[in-house]
Amino acid sequence: MNFKALLKSARGEEPCDLLFKNAAFANLCTMEYERGDIAVKDGIIIGIGEGYEAKESVDCEGRLLLPGFIEGHMHVESTFMTPRSLAAAISPLGTTTVMPDPHEIANTCGVEGIRFMRRESDGLPVDFFYGAPSCVPASAQETPFEEIEAEEIKKLLADGTCAHLGEMMNFPGVCLGDDKVWAKLDAARGLVITGHAPRLKGKELAAYLLGGISSDHECSCEEEALEKLRRGMYLMIRQGATARNLSALAPLLVKNPAFATRCLTVSDDINPIFMLRRGHLDGCLRELIECGVEPLAALRTVTLTPAEYFRLDDRGMIAPGKIADIVMTDTLDEKFRVLKVWKRGKLVAEDGRTLEKITPAVLSALPGYSGEARTPTAEELRVKIENPEAMINVIGVIPEQVVTETLQMPPTNIGGFACADAERGLAKMAVVEKNRGTGRFAVGFIHGFGLTRGAVASSVAHDAHNFTCAGMDDLSMSAALRELARIGGGIVVADGEKILAEIKLPVGGLMSLLSVGEGKAKLEELAAARDALGCSNEHAFMQLSFMSLSVIPELKLTDKGYFDISGCGVMPLFVR
Amino acid sequence: MNFKALLKSARGEEPCDLLFKNAAFANLCTMEYERGDIAVKDGIIIGIGEGYEAKESVDCEGRLLLPGFIEGHMHVESTFMTPRSLAAAISPLGTTTVMPDPHEIANTCGVEGIRFMRRESDGLPVDFFYGAPSCVPASAQETPFEEIEAEEIKKLLADGTCAHLGEMMNFPGVCLGDDKVWAKLDAARGLVITGHAPRLKGKELAAYLLGGISSDHECSCEEEALEKLRRGMYLMIRQGATARNLSALAPLLVKNPAFATRCLTVSDDINPIFMLRRGHLDGCLRELIECGVEPLAALRTVTLTPAEYFRLDDRGMIAPGKIADIVMTDTLDEKFRVLKVWKRGKLVAEDGRTLEKITPAVLSALPGYSGEARTPTAEELRVKIENPEAMINVIGVIPEQVVTETLQMPPTNIGGFACADAERGLAKMAVVEKNRGTGRFAVGFIHGFGLTRGAVASSVAHDAHNFTCAGMDDLSMSAALRELARIGGGIVVADGEKILAEIKLPVGGLMSLLSVGEGKAKLEELAAARDALGCSNEHAFMQLSFMSLSVIPELKLTDKGYFDISGCGVMPLFVR
Repeated sequence: MNFKALLKSARGEEPCDLLFKNAAFANLCTMEYERGDIAVKDGIIIGIGEGYEAKESVDCEGRLLLPGFIEGHMHVESTFMTPRSLAAAISPLGTTTVMPDPHEIANTCGVEGIRFMRRESDGLPVDFFYGAPSCVPASAQETPFEEIEAEEIKKLLADGTCAHLGEMMNFPGVCLGDDKVWAKLDAARGLVITGHAPRLKGKELAAYLLGGISSDHECSCEEEALEKLRRGMYLMIRQGATARNLSALAPLLVKNPAFATRCLTVSDDINPIFMLRRGHLDGCLRELIECGVEPLAALRTVTLTPAEYFRLDDRGMIAPGKIADIVMTDTLDEKFRVLKVWKRGKLVAEDGRTLEKITPAVLSALPGYSGEARTPTAEELRVKIENPEAMINVIGVIPEQVVTETLQMPPTNIGGFACADAERGLAKMAVVEKNRGTGRFAVGFIHGFGLTRGAVASSVAHDAHNFTCAGMDDLSMSAALRELARIGGGIVVADGEKILAEIKLPVGGLMSLLSVGEGKAKLEELAAARDALGCSNEHAFMQLSFMSLSVIPELKLTDKGYFDISGCGVMPLFVR
Repeated sequence: MNFKALLKSARGEEPCDLLFKNAAFANLCTMEYERGDIAVKDGIIIGIGEGYEAKESVDCEGRLLLPGFIEGHMHVESTFMTPRSLAAAISPLGTTTVMPDPHEIANTCGVEGIRFMRRESDGLPVDFFYGAPSCVPASAQETPFEEIEAEEIKKLLADGTCAHLGEMMNFPGVCLGDDKVWAKLDAARGLVITGHAPRLKGKELAAYLLGGISSDHECSCEEEALEKLRRGMYLMIRQGATARNLSALAPLLVKNPAFATRCLTVSDDINPIFMLRRGHLDGCLRELIECGVEPLAALRTVTLTPAEYFRLDDRGMIAPGKIADIVMTDTLDEKFRVLKVWKRGKLVAEDGRTLEKITPAVLSALPGYSGEARTPTAEELRVKIENPEAMINVIGVIPEQVVTETLQMPPTNIGGFACADAERGLAKMAVVEKNRGTGRFAVGFIHGFGLTRGAVASSVAHDAHNFTCAGMDDLSMSAALRELARIGGGIVVADGEKILAEIKLPVGGLMSLLSVGEGKAKLEELAAARDALGCSNEHAFMQLSFMSLSVIPELKLTDKGYFDISGCGVMPLFVR
């Protein structure tokens, strides 16, 4: 950026490109509303006040201008959209900058998956600053495409692919001084290191902080959040599609609006249905204000504070020298709407739509991902009972949670095989390794998932994102898995040999080539098909996607079999 | 720093080095007082709370612990002390980090002078982070030892000698796009660039901000400060020995304590007399609180906010993972006293004294500075009147200010020579080039300086720090200048051939080898001698030191002659 070339316009001696006239704007530095004209040239705010000439003027008629919203933590892949589709969806909602952690695609496609995300994020009306994933794989129990170690992280940070360290989820590894974990922390020392430390407190939290980690987005109650704030962490108030902490944490900001300088509001994981219903950061703002948070304090958590936290000193406020990322709204209350959005001084969205059509296509090659996997036949999925007295270990689903419990139950024995049993709430589960094409699979059982017939299968299965399936009969399961392989990844609902619904996720097995509206429609079709299988669990797909995540308690199933996070480690299907 | 080695102590499994028990402490993240034990190992805070074992404990008995104070902007040279003496003086006052701009020594000794300051600052109980001087020389009218251009600045930033860009005083150069100025700004783009922009506002301020400059310490009224805050700048509230803006700006913090997140309190220029009377940042805190600023808001301006502004994420708060720079006080009110100071977990000062004796010696060589100059004889200082009708241009002193006015007066003609004249308030002035040893000198006149006889001479003469002298007769002036050269720089008061008082400043012509107490005594001797010459102007030495600064309006005298900053440029002694 040639700032020197802007001086004549700044001094008012040459016309600027764009002039917002009769504007009110939010000043996050002084926490007040100001009035004044705002002059822009070459995408940079060059002045505020009277007496500017411009090639183009926007009469704001007293409407409010806000700095573009900055998303401090999200996973693009969770939206089922590519960066292009996501940008098209959130740009009209006022988001102009996103700090994504690409650890999902890093699991399925490795380092080249991250570079792919970086490439696909260029030239969009939203700036993406990627964190280098710090935990690929989530644990040794999972099989990602490749492990990402400190050396790769150094390269990603050095060559500009990534700008900070992504969420450090391995808090036991940090606290206990795991060498590989600390090599990653050391690789990012001096940069921003983002955290993920649910329920960590006291001495464990202090140990975690020694790693240089400076934020957390896993707080679910005021007490936890306050301790982390007190110990110097930035608090990321998460309002995701399912992990929703905003109403629990907003009271902190109500009681003490000054906390807005230490709080960000973030999405973590959101999906098209959620976005079209609630919005993005604009929705978070409405909710914060509805909770009683002072509007400018709420606004700071998605503008200046994330800019400060991530050391983006070129944005986060409407001030001379900053990028002209500007959001026009009717007002700033619990019902406000984004009217227009300018990115680097260019009008990019109006009335909920981007001005330029952004197709959901992928523009570059994604190396590493084939989506192919040898999936097991119905016969291979059968579980033979060797000892009729033996109990089976079962994953116990806890409603609306991603944590589970470990259950021991007698199997339902049909012809010498342990089978799913709707009456007992027992489904069979399978995980098929697909990232390395080994076709290795493991079978287990899950209680409380909610299916009564058929099967659901998904290539979205945290964190390694192998093919995961839950079903009531082996035929449905093998059909769902086979279809999953055929379409190169996605979510499939099958009833016997029949495919009831599916969403294709060919981009790394995680992302579709759909727009937000198309994605929503597909997800609704999947929900309807799930309903048709008698499954009342509206979080079924999300819960299934977490049943192989080997770092969230208690019992999980990966392609290597059962894993008990609470200390037992690898566990057999049958209780010995 | 090996943080991993601290984990066992952080987890409470191994004893830490030092434990503050029964402490109250200021938490700048949540803006509250907390109670709890604070555990330290290897100079790092490793935990807060109960249950730590320690090799050594400090029973705080409920006394208050604060983070070490951070000085956001000062010139070490202005204290007449070396970094060692300064550290010895301010460490017991609670200062643990200083961000000095070494542009004074850079003028007299060049780049090697800066490296000398860096070396002399190592191993002290105060951390010094130097800014790379951005304006050496202050203008082309001055003669420094060498010019410091963008290339040298790049090197200083790259090799760790400097960490940010020092005050950008050349605001016309910034606003008008001067190539050399912008090359310096570009050399520091992305780093912190500190500012100096008195009275700049509106479009000029906006143009200045395009340079990437993010702070200012020259605000003297609320209106100016508020505009700069609104435009995104950090406000440095300056409370120097003579430039004292605290009482004018404190109301901003009284009205809106949230401004504490955008304000620093700094010293800029202070001297031993001031320090022993008022303190350092501890004194600023007392004054802020006396002005009605909420104590924690006041404290933030000298702890967390400077740490945030300068991106020192290892300090500024008492929290796990941060450096154990800790100040113990009796309380935090308008009369509070610093009791003890720990630097990196080591007790370094108690009851106003450093525990370890820090001698005022200089430990390394200072290249480039000779202090030698050929000084003019009394005869050479004479000003012959060629045209008896001609008026002379005269620098008009404005009481207590460093700005001047341009006067035109008839000379006092004694035997065909223009002479000083006590009755008319007219003194003669001379500036002798000493940095390059040319001995070039210029003579002018100054009105309102206050002398009635004798002469004062000084090697502290902003910014080039040539030998500057004001006197009532040529004999006193030549004697004062000769003595100045003999002692290698300093401040001298002479009456005829007799030297009444002097302070030796052999270190670059700017710094003594004295402690703060010795320096105060010498300055008091100088003041007494000045009084003996009938000079009632208590700011005489300071004002003299600014009479050759070619960037502060209006008329100044450098070794090249008169310079009128307000547009006329070089001016002759006699009005033509």
